Amino acid sequence: MTQAPMRTVSRVADLIDQFDHLNPTRDLKELIEASGLPKSTVLRLATDLVNRGLLAINSKGYYSIGPAFLRWTRLAQEMWHVDEQTLNVLESLVRDLGETATLYVLQGRSRTAIASVDGTHAIRNVARLGEPLPLTRGASAIALLSGNLALIDSLKNAALLGEEESFDVDQLRTRAAQAAELGYSESQGEREADAASIAVPVRNQEGRVIAALSISGPISRFGSGVRDKALGRMIAASNVLSTNGIGPVGGLL
Amino acid sequence: MTQAPMRTVSRVADLIDQFDHLNPTRDLKELIEASGLPKSTVLRLATDLVNRGLLAINSKGYYSIGPAFLRWTRLAQEMWHVDEQTLNVLESLVRDLGETATLYVLQGRSRTAIASVDGTHAIRNVARLGEPLPLTRGASAIALLSGNLALIDSLKNAALLGEEESFDVDQLRTRAAQAAELGYSESQGEREADAASIAVPVRNQEGRVIAALSISGPISRFGSGVRDKALGRMIAASNVLSTNGIGPVGGLL
Repeated sequence: MTQAPMRTVSRVADLIDQFDHLNPTRDLKELIEASGLPKSTVLRLATDLVNRGLLAINSKGYYSIGPAFLRWTRLAQEMWHVDEQTLNVLESLVRDLGETATLYVLQGRSRTAIASVDGTHAIRNVARLGEPLPLTRGASAIALLSGNLALIDSLKNAALLGEEESFDVDQLRTRAAQAAELGYSESQGEREADAASIAVPVRNQEGRVIAALSISGPISRFGSGVRDKALGRMIAASNVLSTNGIGPVGGLL
Repeated sequence: MTQAPMRTVSRVADLIDQFDHLNPTRDLKELIEASGLPKSTVLRLATDLVNRGLLAINSKGYYSIGPAFLRWTRLAQEMWHVDEQTLNVLESLVRDLGETATLYVLQGRSRTAIASVDGTHAIRNVARLGEPLPLTRGASAIALLSGNLALIDSLKNAALLGEEESFDVDQLRTRAAQAAELGYSESQGEREADAASIAVPVRNQEGRVIAALSISGPISRFGSGVRDKALGRMIAASNVLSTNGIGPVGGLL
């Protein structure tokens, strides 16, 4: 039990990660190409995952997400569900600002969207719930780090070990410290070239930052006028969430 | 890449399998006990799973299903969803017979419930969707095997390799062949001591058995009178499903 099992966990996760709404089914060839692993390895992992119901294979040899997910999807939805009040806060932000409002939470060395309300414009940002995103890029990452500066060292160590993309540690620290002072963070084209975002931290009863509330959309709509209008609303919204909590999911954070 | 990675897939699946509605959170000690693995191994696997969002850990050290499952919630529900017509057939069976009606599909060397309508009695069978169950026990297993007799050899081989519980091959073959002839199967107390079940195969357009439709409840209510009443209805119901299909999920089978 040295590195091999850990690599296998990653490989298993990589295989499962190949399936989404755009790619609900995959054949063996696609899985091999996407994973870069030898055919025999992919076949063995996939067979084992099929036997556990984590993947399924149909009579034509196409793989898909397995029925075992039914077991956990309801559980995940109940646990990672924000309450009605929190959703109302997001909806009210979208009504006022027109841009997509999203709530991100810290998970290990990543951040994950657990709730999102789409903006009202045809061209808008659409958040993918549940997908682990980097903590080193984007306004929401900075807002989360602003209350968890010690995490930057853990990210740095992971990057040194090659487990994370490398990044400019000093710059990240400066930005997180600044966000802690100002109470918000901004980003333009960091994670996706055309997307801009403004984010504010959300705290739990003990004052610990557990989430980031963001609005995001195309860079072209995120001029300084928008920022000035948005910031007051967002800080007010985050205060409401910090005071009232965000529902049962808060207990998981 | 000999046996080790396969063991790891099983270990990963075992860890995730520890979480359900009765046990939404688990601490490290429980995970170690449940898995029988050394602490360091569980810790390493769990940490890797947390980094991929498949597990989450809160500030008190309790693990839960991770937010990454949100990514597949809609996908899994859409793919493994039977259509309205199929659900109506199950509901109508429950109205007529009072017992829980469930639709099982073949998955690898197991069967999995993908749709179920609860019986009307206070004491009733409740099917857990998405959970892989053995193909060697229970009326639904026999109904599925009745159209896939070749699978019995694969189950036998897996049992010889220690990957499956051993079972009486000849008895299983006899029962499956009999079910193929009669068009139904029965079981009493096979998978759970107090539960009885009657199951009929469901076919796809090409005539291949892709699912089993069962009714199940306490043994005390499954006398021969019930069977005689139930059988005609169930065979009629399975004919409807075999003719009309069970929805998009049929394409996965």
